[in-house]
Amino acid sequence: MKQFTSVHDVDSLTRWVNDAIAIKQNAQGFEDYGDHKTLGLVFLNPSLRTRMSTQKAAYNLGMNTMVINMDKEGWALEMNDNVIMNGRSVEHIKEAAAVLGEYCDILGIRCFPGLQNKEEDYSEEVLEKFIKHCGVPVISLESATRHPLQSFADLLTIREQATKPKPKVVLSWAPHIKALPQAVPNSFSEWMCRAQEEGLVEFVITHPEDYDLAEDFTKGATITYNQNEALKGADFVYVKNWSSYTDYGKVLTIGEDWMITNNKLKLTDNAKVMHCLPVRRGLELADEILDGPNSLVIKQAGNRVFAAQTVLKKILETNFTR
Amino acid sequence: MKQFTSVHDVDSLTRWVNDAIAIKQNAQGFEDYGDHKTLGLVFLNPSLRTRMSTQKAAYNLGMNTMVINMDKEGWALEMNDNVIMNGRSVEHIKEAAAVLGEYCDILGIRCFPGLQNKEEDYSEEVLEKFIKHCGVPVISLESATRHPLQSFADLLTIREQATKPKPKVVLSWAPHIKALPQAVPNSFSEWMCRAQEEGLVEFVITHPEDYDLAEDFTKGATITYNQNEALKGADFVYVKNWSSYTDYGKVLTIGEDWMITNNKLKLTDNAKVMHCLPVRRGLELADEILDGPNSLVIKQAGNRVFAAQTVLKKILETNFTR
Amino acid sequence: MKQFTSVHDVDSLTRWVNDAIAIKQNAQGFEDYGDHKTLGLVFLNPSLRTRMSTQKAAYNLGMNTMVINMDKEGWALEMNDNVIMNGRSVEHIKEAAAVLGEYCDILGIRCFPGLQNKEEDYSEEVLEKFIKHCGVPVISLESATRHPLQSFADLLTIREQATKPKPKVVLSWAPHIKALPQAVPNSFSEWMCRAQEEGLVEFVITHPEDYDLAEDFTKGATITYNQNEALKGADFVYVKNWSSYTDYGKVLTIGEDWMITNNKLKLTDNAKVMHCLPVRRGLELADEILDGPNSLVIKQAGNRVFAAQTVLKKILETNFTR
Repeated sequence: MKQFTSVHDVDSLTRWVNDAIAIKQNAQGFEDYGDHKTLGLVFLNPSLRTRMSTQKAAYNLGMNTMVINMDKEGWALEMNDNVIMNGRSVEHIKEAAAVLGEYCDILGIRCFPGLQNKEEDYSEEVLEKFIKHCGVPVISLESATRHPLQSFADLLTIREQATKPKPKVVLSWAPHIKALPQAVPNSFSEWMCRAQEEGLVEFVITHPEDYDLAEDFTKGATITYNQNEALKGADFVYVKNWSSYTDYGKVLTIGEDWMITNNKLKLTDNAKVMHCLPVRRGLELADEILDGPNSLVIKQAGNRVFAAQTVLKKILETNFTR
Repeated sequence: MKQFTSVHDVDSLTRWVNDAIAIKQNAQGFEDYGDHKTLGLVFLNPSLRTRMSTQKAAYNLGMNTMVINMDKEGWALEMNDNVIMNGRSVEHIKEAAAVLGEYCDILGIRCFPGLQNKEEDYSEEVLEKFIKHCGVPVISLESATRHPLQSFADLLTIREQATKPKPKVVLSWAPHIKALPQAVPNSFSEWMCRAQEEGLVEFVITHPEDYDLAEDFTKGATITYNQNEALKGADFVYVKNWSSYTDYGKVLTIGEDWMITNNKLKLTDNAKVMHCLPVRRGLELADEILDGPNSLVIKQAGNRVFAAQTVLKKILETNFTR
Repeated sequence: MKQFTSVHDVDSLTRWVNDAIAIKQNAQGFEDYGDHKTLGLVFLNPSLRTRMSTQKAAYNLGMNTMVINMDKEGWALEMNDNVIMNGRSVEHIKEAAAVLGEYCDILGIRCFPGLQNKEEDYSEEVLEKFIKHCGVPVISLESATRHPLQSFADLLTIREQATKPKPKVVLSWAPHIKALPQAVPNSFSEWMCRAQEEGLVEFVITHPEDYDLAEDFTKGATITYNQNEALKGADFVYVKNWSSYTDYGKVLTIGEDWMITNNKLKLTDNAKVMHCLPVRRGLELADEILDGPNSLVIKQAGNRVFAAQTVLKKILETNFTR
């Protein structure tokens, strides 16, 4: 495995989940795998969970880590080719990526979308250029359209918590005041559609009209604008806001009535509630849910370590001899 | 020991100082104690000494460290309960603390007071909520009302430098142009009052009128508004500015005549001069003192490593099996 | 060796290059050298390559590293003596340096020039005060007038790539829109002049009128304002902008016609092209060069690790017993 940027880099979700469970049971059992190896974590945007969970995963594998907050510590990057760089940008991504590849054995990169230009964001040009020019294996730490380490941790959490062989999982759009990327819901949907193919879940998406996600990510999912309908009999409710894909990057409604509450939970089969965090209490999700017994949000965050560790271990095994 | 946030977490100062001296003489003798353990250092405010000395202490114990400057790298935190988070704050401290507890075995947190609301600051709500929700042992890296790692290093320095069994220690208010927290003087006073109880020092506080510290921290100390009186026969002068506690957070006077100079030192018994740093030269403390033979400020800063290492070692011994 | 701040700290370039080549061939062969040692990297200005390559070098030697971005994470430093610190600066460099020396066995510092006051910048007061007060060995991570780790990596790259015993090396001024320091060209020139003395290269400098570098750095070099003349038969062209030294810190011309292109390269002996990075494409250097087979810029950046590792190893060998 040369890279981990989407579910398409995974041969079998069933196998990967089993691998992650094995690693979780023996997190320090592989600490020679990363010996003498350096993981570089490159952030073009803020991070708490992703940085710390991935650092912890690397530490468990005996790797050295170097973090660079490019926006704050480094130089403004130029992404476009064949421009005269006589403006604000100081370094081209071609050089920046290649140099980072000289210092690190594996690189992770976080590059959020601008939410101004759909084609640009969905072409994943920053991630793709980074991969092209750095010359070493790359892990996405959340790109313009996907957040695969999160989705992997989410699937792991669902499998750990499921009490049925094929639980009903509902992705439910949530209210918000700001325009957020589609990366988390795209990615979760992509993973759940695949999980459904592998017989691991039944997957339903619900959101207001005009909030349809790009079809590439939702093939196989049941999609409905009726939240109550979707929630019926659900075993897991994955709560997440996103801005419109069709009217790109726009907040079309705050949508307060879409917030999951204990009352709405009554429609479900005592569903567990998930969120990738950070979550805005009282807006995206009711306090009573987050403080109640059905919330899985901290367990999800905890599983980020083991998702990252599984991915790093696979990359180490594939690309380096010990 | 589940936490270290004040002198109340210490059973015997005499014993702790001896422990710290033993560690200082053999700093690398305990490097298996922290094996496979991760210390998270969470800063809501700037830090130089505290971060680096605690990282060094952790390194000496073989621990992994992860630093997060929450204000710069992470997300704006919400501290209040039951609010609709539709403003600037992106993540609630409940989630942030719990997540950090998933990734770290021990957490340190720095959370300065706002100096706007006495009750809020003195309730230590940020520190207390952090402790409540993170689920792992917590070390204060300076909170709204205390800086116990500093006070421990200060006591260690006094014991190392003392030439009498029971030296006279004077906390002397210093001039400043900005409103500073009472955390360092509160904490130093609390530790010295306890040290006085244990027969280790004689403790005197001097400051201008209307600069009285909260009584909780000064019980047992001799307090005088007459600096010259206080300095007579002193063996150690601890210099520190603080803003008013009674007229909360206000700078009532610059107080230039309170600056300790060589001339004032003549009143003492050739006293050693201490300051927690950073110090504003020529305002808080005269150059001639800082550049002279009586200054202990660098030794104090150096001892921060061994104070932190002693605390970390005790937490490791109490909470984890090796 | 107590410090590494310029070529004057190097006894023999020939020997140092050989040492670096040996380390490059066996980068992990010395990982016990830095055991229990801590390298502090102090940045008053942004950094990508220097920080990461030096961290990697330290890691290869088994050292612990601590990075502090003083401008962002720490306190504003006062550089002047005998001032009343009642303004913006919070800590004096005397204390800051001494404290850092308490926590670290070796320190690196980056301190760019202000480009306002030639005498101040060329006195290297920040670097010199830091060295004076920290009490431990110091490595320059680029100071006001020099960037010796870069120059060492550059020389290493030239020696690796040279196909003649004494290649012709040309430092060619490049166009830019901003006022840049003279540190990199000063330092490169200083190293090449010495390399010329040792018979390793022939060294030529070319730049527009009024862009002469300070004579201290260029003694022995052939200097010409005629770029075409300089490029004739060149084996290496080192491209770099700098602001005027005589009309200090000023941009006297953008100088677009000084950009090295494939056409200009025809004048050379198929010269390899070098740049310390970051480079502004289309302004300092043509895309066709950077994307073409003659560019060495990534190899140079890669060699930063081995230059730093060689310097650190020498300092460890000289100052500490194992």
